[in-house]
Amino acid sequence: MSNGKRKNIDDFIAKIKSKQANKLDVDVLFQSVQQNDKTALSKAITLVESQKSEDIETAHALLEKCLPEKSNTQRIAITGIPGVGKSTFINAYAKHLSEQGKKVAVLSVDPSSSISQGSILGDKTRMDDLAELPNVYIRPTATGNTLGGVHLRTREVMLLCEAAGYDTIIIETVGVGQSEHEVKNMTDIMVVMLLPGSGDSLQGIKKGIMETADIVLINKADLFPEQNINHTLADYKKAMHLQAEKSNKWIPQILPASAFEIEKLEKVSATIQQYFNHNLLNGSFKQNRKAQWQLWFKKSIGWATQEALKSKGIDVENNEVDSDELPPAKALRLIKNALR
Amino acid sequence: MSNGKRKNIDDFIAKIKSKQANKLDVDVLFQSVQQNDKTALSKAITLVESQKSEDIETAHALLEKCLPEKSNTQRIAITGIPGVGKSTFINAYAKHLSEQGKKVAVLSVDPSSSISQGSILGDKTRMDDLAELPNVYIRPTATGNTLGGVHLRTREVMLLCEAAGYDTIIIETVGVGQSEHEVKNMTDIMVVMLLPGSGDSLQGIKKGIMETADIVLINKADLFPEQNINHTLADYKKAMHLQAEKSNKWIPQILPASAFEIEKLEKVSATIQQYFNHNLLNGSFKQNRKAQWQLWFKKSIGWATQEALKSKGIDVENNEVDSDELPPAKALRLIKNALR
Repeated sequence: MSNGKRKNIDDFIAKIKSKQANKLDVDVLFQSVQQNDKTALSKAITLVESQKSEDIETAHALLEKCLPEKSNTQRIAITGIPGVGKSTFINAYAKHLSEQGKKVAVLSVDPSSSISQGSILGDKTRMDDLAELPNVYIRPTATGNTLGGVHLRTREVMLLCEAAGYDTIIIETVGVGQSEHEVKNMTDIMVVMLLPGSGDSLQGIKKGIMETADIVLINKADLFPEQNINHTLADYKKAMHLQAEKSNKWIPQILPASAFEIEKLEKVSATIQQYFNHNLLNGSFKQNRKAQWQLWFKKSIGWATQEALKSKGIDVENNEVDSDELPPAKALRLIKNALR
Repeated sequence: MSNGKRKNIDDFIAKIKSKQANKLDVDVLFQSVQQNDKTALSKAITLVESQKSEDIETAHALLEKCLPEKSNTQRIAITGIPGVGKSTFINAYAKHLSEQGKKVAVLSVDPSSSISQGSILGDKTRMDDLAELPNVYIRPTATGNTLGGVHLRTREVMLLCEAAGYDTIIIETVGVGQSEHEVKNMTDIMVVMLLPGSGDSLQGIKKGIMETADIVLINKADLFPEQNINHTLADYKKAMHLQAEKSNKWIPQILPASAFEIEKLEKVSATIQQYFNHNLLNGSFKQNRKAQWQLWFKKSIGWATQEALKSKGIDVENNEVDSDELPPAKALRLIKNALR
């Protein structure tokens, strides 16, 4: 047998073996994830977050094992500008939920978050405490990998966490960009956090975000005089009142919040449950999940096209367009040629 | 000859004839557009705005005749909430430019615009006056066809207007959505219009828009006391000062404006020219146009994919995704299969 032939056969065997290894890995990984092995979950998330084309097939195989998605989970987006106290509040809220027997995963997509970056003011110890609870899983942002503030693969990560048995997924995001619409498209409820103060300035939060809010929390309520809190509540109630009715008929609630006053925390928690009950009863929970699933598909078309063209040696991103070529005509020709 | 064969040949001849007719149409239409035949221009725009797949090839053939794009044109975006007086100001500004020998096309992508919808307060006559000037072309929004406030085909329409010899293209848009980023990606300068008043509230304009502004106009300056205007100017100057330096090193200018005070109008006009001179000198005008051309291509990929798949009988938009299919995996399979 010639050396060339021998090499071809060796390559072929190696390829088969690696395919089998991959197949095996996915099964083992999925089983470990299901058994709430946090290390396996982290490994699975890293795989799913990989941008390498060769990892995508494996990641999809793993994710398809997590389907159909669980309908008894709660995906909660918590948004607010840096300094509003998101991390501290989420910390207390997650602990509260875990004490009630819930399994909570916290995914931070705010790069300034102390959950994702460690602590500034002694939060570190408390965070570590939380991460050590068996019922709580914390996943910081992979840096440099965010898309408008939301991690590119947050939807996939949620599926993994739910497969691992986490019934409450909290997504922490910073409410200053276009990311809120992304986050709204992948969660069941939008909680916007603000500080006591004038409602006029909207505190750097874009107005569009207020329209997406299902619950507004006036945070750090323990640090401000009560009349200040009440004034803010009244201000926002007025502002929210002017908004168009939501399709699910939910009337957005505005509440004082604090990580350090248990009654306020319990009230917030109860209101979030009330929201879920409302939506489960009138069917909008299921409807919303279904619409999000469909939207995820639509949004994947662009990415999938680039990915598929890449495997044909066509790199769309770096395709130069001359000034005598019409960009959409060139794009259409390119795709039509590839499809021929 | 059998009837079947005869029919096939007839169909074939009809097809050739219609292709020739199309080809002829495009040449004739292009020539008429070049000769500033306003009716031909309107017809060409209607063709280009068509969403029908069968019109796209013809539209692209016409548009490619307009290439390479003119580099001595000025594309000016004017944005502001309804009531700020955009239409009245643009009217006066366009008239002013035409008196200076410029050829001005006004494309309105604000559905509430009185340019696109006719008049409320007697503007009608003035608008009609403007439209009758040989050097001015006004094109209202095709209703129901906007994408986040910007018409889906505004880029194409600009190319047609420039081919018809219009050297100044004014795009009127309402500054309340995500459309400003779209509009910024297709124009050379962003003019944001505000009313005199407190800078705190930002008057319903999103903060992100202020960051995109090259020139801010405090409009209706003739109707307010001077100290009110000056206070507003100072407010916004302070706010703009805090912004990061622009890549073209232009320092955003804030000016009082009025459709009825010629000195103010002339000052605005001169400042806009100053901006163009600045950018032409340091090369950022050309750079920006080139980057926009490239971005247009990238943004066309998604559309082109859907279009190309449609011609293969695959309708992406209406493809149902089951709950046991992973949306991105399904998208990738779909595209890869089509590419095979």
